[in-house]
Amino acid sequence: MKAHLSRRYHFSASHRLHTDAYDAAQNFAVFGKCNNPHGHGHNYTVQVTLSGQVNPVTGMVCDLAELDEFAQTNLLDRFDHTNLNTLDCFANKVSTTENLSIEIHRIFQGFEAAHLEQIHVEETSNNSFDYAGETDLAPGRI
Amino acid sequence: MKAHLSRRYHFSASHRLHTDAYDAAQNFAVFGKCNNPHGHGHNYTVQVTLSGQVNPVTGMVCDLAELDEFAQTNLLDRFDHTNLNTLDCFANKVSTTENLSIEIHRIFQGFEAAHLEQIHVEETSNNSFDYAGETDLAPGRI
Amino acid sequence: MKAHLSRRYHFSASHRLHTDAYDAAQNFAVFGKCNNPHGHGHNYTVQVTLSGQVNPVTGMVCDLAELDEFAQTNLLDRFDHTNLNTLDCFANKVSTTENLSIEIHRIFQGFEAAHLEQIHVEETSNNSFDYAGETDLAPGRI
Amino acid sequence: MKAHLSRRYHFSASHRLHTDAYDAAQNFAVFGKCNNPHGHGHNYTVQVTLSGQVNPVTGMVCDLAELDEFAQTNLLDRFDHTNLNTLDCFANKVSTTENLSIEIHRIFQGFEAAHLEQIHVEETSNNSFDYAGETDLAPGRI
Amino acid sequence: MKAHLSRRYHFSASHRLHTDAYDAAQNFAVFGKCNNPHGHGHNYTVQVTLSGQVNPVTGMVCDLAELDEFAQTNLLDRFDHTNLNTLDCFANKVSTTENLSIEIHRIFQGFEAAHLEQIHVEETSNNSFDYAGETDLAPGRI
Amino acid sequence: MKAHLSRRYHFSASHRLHTDAYDAAQNFAVFGKCNNPHGHGHNYTVQVTLSGQVNPVTGMVCDLAELDEFAQTNLLDRFDHTNLNTLDCFANKVSTTENLSIEIHRIFQGFEAAHLEQIHVEETSNNSFDYAGETDLAPGRI
Repeated sequence: MKAHLSRRYHFSASHRLHTDAYDAAQNFAVFGKCNNPHGHGHNYTVQVTLSGQVNPVTGMVCDLAELDEFAQTNLLDRFDHTNLNTLDCFANKVSTTENLSIEIHRIFQGFEAAHLEQIHVEETSNNSFDYAGETDLAPGRI
Repeated sequence: MKAHLSRRYHFSASHRLHTDAYDAAQNFAVFGKCNNPHGHGHNYTVQVTLSGQVNPVTGMVCDLAELDEFAQTNLLDRFDHTNLNTLDCFANKVSTTENLSIEIHRIFQGFEAAHLEQIHVEETSNNSFDYAGETDLAPGRI
Repeated sequence: MKAHLSRRYHFSASHRLHTDAYDAAQNFAVFGKCNNPHGHGHNYTVQVTLSGQVNPVTGMVCDLAELDEFAQTNLLDRFDHTNLNTLDCFANKVSTTENLSIEIHRIFQGFEAAHLEQIHVEETSNNSFDYAGETDLAPGRI
Repeated sequence: MKAHLSRRYHFSASHRLHTDAYDAAQNFAVFGKCNNPHGHGHNYTVQVTLSGQVNPVTGMVCDLAELDEFAQTNLLDRFDHTNLNTLDCFANKVSTTENLSIEIHRIFQGFEAAHLEQIHVEETSNNSFDYAGETDLAPGRI
Repeated sequence: MKAHLSRRYHFSASHRLHTDAYDAAQNFAVFGKCNNPHGHGHNYTVQVTLSGQVNPVTGMVCDLAELDEFAQTNLLDRFDHTNLNTLDCFANKVSTTENLSIEIHRIFQGFEAAHLEQIHVEETSNNSFDYAGETDLAPGRI
Repeated sequence: MKAHLSRRYHFSASHRLHTDAYDAAQNFAVFGKCNNPHGHGHNYTVQVTLSGQVNPVTGMVCDLAELDEFAQTNLLDRFDHTNLNTLDCFANKVSTTENLSIEIHRIFQGFEAAHLEQIHVEETSNNSFDYAGETDLAPGRI
């Protein structure tokens, strides 16, 4: 009996899309208003999807309190109320939500109580991104 | 032309997470505040995903009115405004949303007008669970 | 590093479910109140899911401004504030959301900057449809 | 102990904004794409707000089942899956959401179990209208 | 410069609508399925609206961290994951959302850093209740 | 026939809560994590509520296309994808959502086609602020 559980976390952060590989004109051409030097920001919603056997005694895939504690330490304490561009993980990468999803996927691979299926990040109510790790298999919707 | 359709149903119920396999201290350690002896409750949202060929004459995978009637009789009339722990299906199983998803999946396998792909249950706006049946294939997002 | 991005577009349209292959009684039996001769309508939400390698310089799967421009010309300018039944694509097909999803999938195959994974269309807050093209692979959730 | 209760109802309908008082050019100038001769449509959400003393025995302002029955007969059976322009109430009035709110307010004045405070109608997720009847008092938010 | 701030809190609880003043048949007639002896439950959303002068130095009506601490102690620790009927405040009152709103209004009158305007409680996505205290003034929408 | 219409606009921005009137320790004590020197950000939703007589010919309070054009020029072009602290209006004021609401209220007083009732700004899904101008009258919910 393999089930999936998904849990949503919320944080607010600012960022600026900019790469040193381009000059100012190229940066503006590629990133548009997201290249504003003073930055802008979002309320990000992260949905973590895990899978595993349903424990026949507890009826659970894993302990949500344990997952929340992991997320508090490794996700929210690091990202909430920050400027993403100042974080180590974006020192050499543009702070797009694609790269953010990949970084959060890396983080939750450290949660060992269930199998990480995918990270889903909503940047606005109309924009979202998914990352399921390197895989040959075309993922379904992710 | 195979398409998927998803339809959402809503019910309100109470439950208590508790197993006779554990003593009081173990139950509290595993289930925390969800082990409160008097129970608590949720507005549950169930999303049923079905697939099938799109009928070339009607343009439909199946008749939604027929699906709604099935859901009324087999899902809503059984679960809405109940205490899940008093239902037969939870006599020997903890009423977690994982187990609830599996039970609802069992129910909708009885709907024969389309192929059941998956059951998605939202317990709160931040918590959801999916069950797609026993399968070797790593399901996509589910 | 293959990621998915999903973007939502919104339009309002009217339609009537009706096929000339059936007589009036059959149409009413199959389509019910959706067969009302004067039509009815919806706020449709379309979610387009694309996949691709994350560009190592820009950190993006594709340019969202380019996607928005494509969607404006090919989706919104054609469907928003229309009666779906008057459009060429529904001249010989019932304007169900299944058929609408298939048509929108056909449209976004013309967007070449990323791989089209799937089209998701919400007709109401409780009803949605997905089309991922002809495929042998059982799609995940889609 | 005077409290307010609000209950939401949902229906889908089509309409066309057009007045015989204007010629074609004026209609288009005033109503734009909403003047499309074939119409368009929406998922309308109606929120009815009632007030009254909280009954000291039942703890209720009024019986919601009674309100639902009234709404089914007088609101949903009349408006759901219709073309608003074909209804008597819009024979001589443009079917704007302002006029729809006023008409629904007129209807719910017939519900006598509590005092009608206001009708709120959402045409899309970004557009809403409120009508509280003729009143000297500047209503609060309504 | 008087502004209003509203903050939402969420808890899950069960309840049963029942009064000892009625016999079984009367209870069922008045409360219907909500009278189920084993109870049912909801995800409740509470929105607290406060008003006050905007402090010219801090730009704030009051300190949200202080409000959150008050809400944690006085609202969430008391109501979350409980059976409302077992709480002192419902010992002699039916646990309707009208009475719940009045009780929560009483609680937040103890928060002294701003003026309490109103309590709004959502029981389901279609049902909500508001209480603004005893007042001669017909509140607007509240 | 006086009705209210409300229209929602969305923008993304960053900000930092900080006042030169306080030293670093005081700023942190008052603003907490919102005082992070590198800032953070939000998806802001602004709801503008206007009132007016329903025009007996057009059935409208005012022209929404005209309102959208005003909002594009005066709200979105100024605030979207910016750092609020770099704007003139926050040169001498903390960029709290209270002050943002007051500034947006000032802006929409320039829209002359209907009476401005109130500005509602959502900073996150749990936090919102309202400003209705200087008034003796206790506003309802606003």
